Amino acid sequence: MSLQPGRPWEATAPVVLEWQGGVQGHVRLLDQTRLPEQEVYLECRTVEEVHAAIRRLCVRGAPAIGLAAAYGFVLGIRQRFATGPFLHVVAEVSQLLRTARPTAVNLFWALERMEAAAREVEADDLESILRRLLQVAQDLQQAEAERCYRIAEHGVHLLTDGIGVLTHCNTGALATGAWGTALAPLFLAWERGKRFRVYVDETRPLLQGARLTAWELAKRGIPTTVMCDSAASVLMRAGQVQLVLVGADRIAANGDVANKIGTYGLALAARAHGIPLYVAAPTSSFDLGMADGTCIPIEVRAAEEVAYCGNRRTVPEGVAVYNPAFDVTPAPLISGIITERGIITPVNAASVAQALGELSSRT
Amino acid sequence: MSLQPGRPWEATAPVVLEWQGGVQGHVRLLDQTRLPEQEVYLECRTVEEVHAAIRRLCVRGAPAIGLAAAYGFVLGIRQRFATGPFLHVVAEVSQLLRTARPTAVNLFWALERMEAAAREVEADDLESILRRLLQVAQDLQQAEAERCYRIAEHGVHLLTDGIGVLTHCNTGALATGAWGTALAPLFLAWERGKRFRVYVDETRPLLQGARLTAWELAKRGIPTTVMCDSAASVLMRAGQVQLVLVGADRIAANGDVANKIGTYGLALAARAHGIPLYVAAPTSSFDLGMADGTCIPIEVRAAEEVAYCGNRRTVPEGVAVYNPAFDVTPAPLISGIITERGIITPVNAASVAQALGELSSRT
Repeated sequence: MSLQPGRPWEATAPVVLEWQGGVQGHVRLLDQTRLPEQEVYLECRTVEEVHAAIRRLCVRGAPAIGLAAAYGFVLGIRQRFATGPFLHVVAEVSQLLRTARPTAVNLFWALERMEAAAREVEADDLESILRRLLQVAQDLQQAEAERCYRIAEHGVHLLTDGIGVLTHCNTGALATGAWGTALAPLFLAWERGKRFRVYVDETRPLLQGARLTAWELAKRGIPTTVMCDSAASVLMRAGQVQLVLVGADRIAANGDVANKIGTYGLALAARAHGIPLYVAAPTSSFDLGMADGTCIPIEVRAAEEVAYCGNRRTVPEGVAVYNPAFDVTPAPLISGIITERGIITPVNAASVAQALGELSSRT
Repeated sequence: MSLQPGRPWEATAPVVLEWQGGVQGHVRLLDQTRLPEQEVYLECRTVEEVHAAIRRLCVRGAPAIGLAAAYGFVLGIRQRFATGPFLHVVAEVSQLLRTARPTAVNLFWALERMEAAAREVEADDLESILRRLLQVAQDLQQAEAERCYRIAEHGVHLLTDGIGVLTHCNTGALATGAWGTALAPLFLAWERGKRFRVYVDETRPLLQGARLTAWELAKRGIPTTVMCDSAASVLMRAGQVQLVLVGADRIAANGDVANKIGTYGLALAARAHGIPLYVAAPTSSFDLGMADGTCIPIEVRAAEEVAYCGNRRTVPEGVAVYNPAFDVTPAPLISGIITERGIITPVNAASVAQALGELSSRT
């Protein structure tokens, strides 16, 4: 990872994904399907391996998916450079990676940037092209880490001593390459001496909360309680939760947020108990091409994720399973969206347009 | 099972629990922890075995727990008759069974009836005592089956062609010995030709919805979709659900309902979408000694139920787990409570008192 030592946004967590070596190098990914039991790394040397790693959720979390795809793009160009006209190869590699997962917009966002960079160096030799593309991918990773740290700086003020914070799925370093989105303010507040407890939804069916978020929080010594997703509203009613913090896989122009399945139910429960719910996401998670949440494509994953517990079949054969990976939380249920440039609140089309307009003019 | 052939409340489902043989016989329980893969029966010959079977959830569901305890009481008296004064033995056996699980009031309700029956035959010989107690336990089981069928008859009118019904946990024959509570109206409506789809929350952590409810519905050919608990609110928002039907483990005097963890969150979501939520429960699930839901003891079960998936540890070592087995849904979120005598609606202290008063005067 190219983050420079001494910068506050340097990753203090384990390496989640990084490019190793020069332009003939490869991508190294922490296999998140094996956590928390085993810290195993995958070495991906082809775009197909990166594609499979994203699809299998070895790397997951909207920002991290984007970064993995950027590195995968470099691998794909290296593999296929000689197979056809350069811009055709660019389109082919990009198209392959775009099919890895449908909901997180960061995947498409990162690939657009890689494609743009490729078009600029179309006339160069392969070595120069790869050097440039690798630099762009690494810059994206560093920029993502910086954005996450800025999110932490804006969000840290929501944390006060003694509160309970509820979160869902995983939005830490594992989801972003460094710091995280919704977990980043918690990490920073903890470093600054704030003391609180984090309640983590286990996040069925793949248990990213139990396996990944609890692992990240425990590594930092932050008091953590895991519970079934269905117990969240009970904690709210019991007065244990003062803040809900979640991430986003894609945010529409009106502020509707697609995020891990269960977020919408949490938002309804938070509203019923008068508890603020904040979304934390870098601007790379916004998709102004989507007018509202109904436009966002929602990935429906394999029934087997729900129908088995380990090797044991738990849903009887022949019974249908509905396994959407994400849901959409309407903007009116969201107290604010914490981005790297500040907190968008209230959340609506006008406030999003203003924030994103400012952002694009400054970036 | 002593249900007479030809009666409409006769169980058509597999035998869930029954006494086999005469007074020297034993209790036979379908081991629900092994479903849906294996239909294995436990033969319990001691009160301790029944106690363990209840605690391990081999038999579960509020009404079924009560019936298992009633048979376990017979076994306990048979074992310990010679060990001390009769009423002392009665108290000892009852006390042991009362510690099996804390929330379902049917356990205590059934044991009170067994104790009362025992006091009436205090002066008799052991053979006569056992014959009488066994008869009382079997009468309880038949009465429970009849109550469930009456619940079905009252609830069936809530079902119309083409609707989607969402349910949680298991409230079928497996939970009651015959028919069920919240599933009973579905079974009867289906038999009468109504056509609908049932959405079943998998019901973490022990997956009674996925394993048991889907199994019961599939056996009857009712279209069934299983999903993660956290996906229920998405189905509501998508217009797929027109009715929510759940059971109860204990109902307070004001109509607050303790039921499987997740019911409260469902109720909040149903309210937000204007979808009626009905509770189905026999009058044996009411506890007028509890003024409201805050009085109901909520069982908190072992962390291991959440922290492991099969043999795989999914929550990191050292991280706290909160695993309440039940939650409380406040009466104002409940459209009605379907009992064997009719539907209590609206649900409040006055309507419950009136319904239960009528019931106790008629029973």
